[in-house]
Amino acid sequence: MKADLKQIQVPIASEMTEFELKFRGLMKSKVKLLDHIMNYIVKRKGKQMRPMFVFLTAGVCGEINESTHRGAALIELLHTATLVHDDVVDDANYRRGFFSVNALWKNKIAVLVGDYLLSRGLLLSVDNGDFKLLQIVSNAVKEMSEGELLQIAKARKLDITEEVYYQIIRQKTASLIASCCAVGASSVEGNIEVVSKMQEFGEKVGMAFQIKDDLFDYGEEEIGKPVGIDIKEKKMTLPLIFALNNTDWLEKRRIISLIRNKSDDKKAVNQVITFVKKSGGLEYAKEKMNMFFQEALAILNQFPDSQYKTSLEDLVSYTIERKK
Amino acid sequence: MKADLKQIQVPIASEMTEFELKFRGLMKSKVKLLDHIMNYIVKRKGKQMRPMFVFLTAGVCGEINESTHRGAALIELLHTATLVHDDVVDDANYRRGFFSVNALWKNKIAVLVGDYLLSRGLLLSVDNGDFKLLQIVSNAVKEMSEGELLQIAKARKLDITEEVYYQIIRQKTASLIASCCAVGASSVEGNIEVVSKMQEFGEKVGMAFQIKDDLFDYGEEEIGKPVGIDIKEKKMTLPLIFALNNTDWLEKRRIISLIRNKSDDKKAVNQVITFVKKSGGLEYAKEKMNMFFQEALAILNQFPDSQYKTSLEDLVSYTIERKK
Repeated sequence: MKADLKQIQVPIASEMTEFELKFRGLMKSKVKLLDHIMNYIVKRKGKQMRPMFVFLTAGVCGEINESTHRGAALIELLHTATLVHDDVVDDANYRRGFFSVNALWKNKIAVLVGDYLLSRGLLLSVDNGDFKLLQIVSNAVKEMSEGELLQIAKARKLDITEEVYYQIIRQKTASLIASCCAVGASSVEGNIEVVSKMQEFGEKVGMAFQIKDDLFDYGEEEIGKPVGIDIKEKKMTLPLIFALNNTDWLEKRRIISLIRNKSDDKKAVNQVITFVKKSGGLEYAKEKMNMFFQEALAILNQFPDSQYKTSLEDLVSYTIERKK
Repeated sequence: MKADLKQIQVPIASEMTEFELKFRGLMKSKVKLLDHIMNYIVKRKGKQMRPMFVFLTAGVCGEINESTHRGAALIELLHTATLVHDDVVDDANYRRGFFSVNALWKNKIAVLVGDYLLSRGLLLSVDNGDFKLLQIVSNAVKEMSEGELLQIAKARKLDITEEVYYQIIRQKTASLIASCCAVGASSVEGNIEVVSKMQEFGEKVGMAFQIKDDLFDYGEEEIGKPVGIDIKEKKMTLPLIFALNNTDWLEKRRIISLIRNKSDDKKAVNQVITFVKKSGGLEYAKEKMNMFFQEALAILNQFPDSQYKTSLEDLVSYTIERKK
């Protein structure tokens, strides 16, 4: 690993501090219950990679300004809203080691809190006339929900191709990182070509990020995360898709039948994992992840050198080398 | 009843037809599962009172235009999104006599579909530069989620005052009708005072509308709707609040204990209903409903006469005289 998150943040340290303060302010509400939940959400904050992508991209393209800050807050509010909604969506009881909002206050509150966060983000942008940013982010909301729904639809059929897999992860994951980079660029630079180049860069990073995430499900490097959850939920990811496409039809039928009928059974899930590993599915997925990583770097290299660019490169390396 | 919905729509008949066509177009998606759900949602469409409020208010203030149409679509998309999310929120298995999206496709899909609808509305506005409309509507999203959360918080304590009740219904219900009217006015008229007058008009209508809805829970006029659901869910509405505030402390303690401990028991709920009726809670709530109704009409009367104004008056009368 080239650099840790702390080192990566050095060129944007003051921005990140300011961001955190402002974000806390945005999460306040007159309604006590809501304020209580907001405090809880602020406490369990994650790595904040999304605001880092916004600030670093802005730094690469120009001079970070107030609009960059609002863009970072808009994205983090949206991201937090989708996490809270995902708690409903995934029936997850844990998130980042805490109980999820969903488990503590039930589905109804999780949905409302997500909607509330989204509206705070919208108002922040609308009130300040950040319409370009709003357009980028609204599009990401559409892509993300469509991608998740596509994944649910396909999980029922188990006949997903590599192409559909890329479409799903492009919509559900890569679109948000792509908008981080587009928002960062757009906040400092009017040239549409520059903005869409950065958006493409972010999309490549997002694709690599999600493939990495899907590899974790096979116990690759990840520490302390349960294995085989995607298989249990009938989510077909790249290692499995490759393995199924490179075996004889009898074996394919056997594996699909295991997933369809026995995905609740630990033993059956382990059989699927062994099959994927034996078929070279993990190596193939890593190859593809590296391909997206290299494509991302190639785009970034078209921009002039700076401390921001170095940190952004390190952040991209971090996303595919991270251990969790 | 002065006029039915069909008659009320006469001055905006062509607008409503065009609206419906466009709305169907907006609900299309490349994702089959989503498209399937969208068709289902379009089929079970309600009375479409919200677009009516948008078009009629616009007609009263000026000349209906393309921006009015997009405003109506934005509000209907938002309203549909909140209905789909409410299916999760209320654990409702039925809505308008059909199975709810939630019951058919489960919580996770309902949340995602709601988010998708919201994003379609956002994009429609952002892509066309309707930023004033977006500001009005984003604010409504914030108010609505905050109001619902306030109601949930207060339902746990059972100590709600009339003032808090008004705050809840202002946020959770009146804010959306207020934005219908503000959006209609704003789409045809730049004068902020006119827009905020129409917003105030819509708020009064929304207050009357919700009190009417809360009266239905006591079997007032409503046909075929179950009675006592609010009490079962510990939602304190105006008739009950008034009744509790106008009785001796012993009786008050007895009723609150029934709601707190026995609200699942049909008999106990009936006792609460009888208590409210005997205490004049229904008459008091009707009085307040009429007060808001009169205040709404007084504001509307400041606008010049037109066929739109007549229909808008009839629509307001309809909201407080409706039987369901």
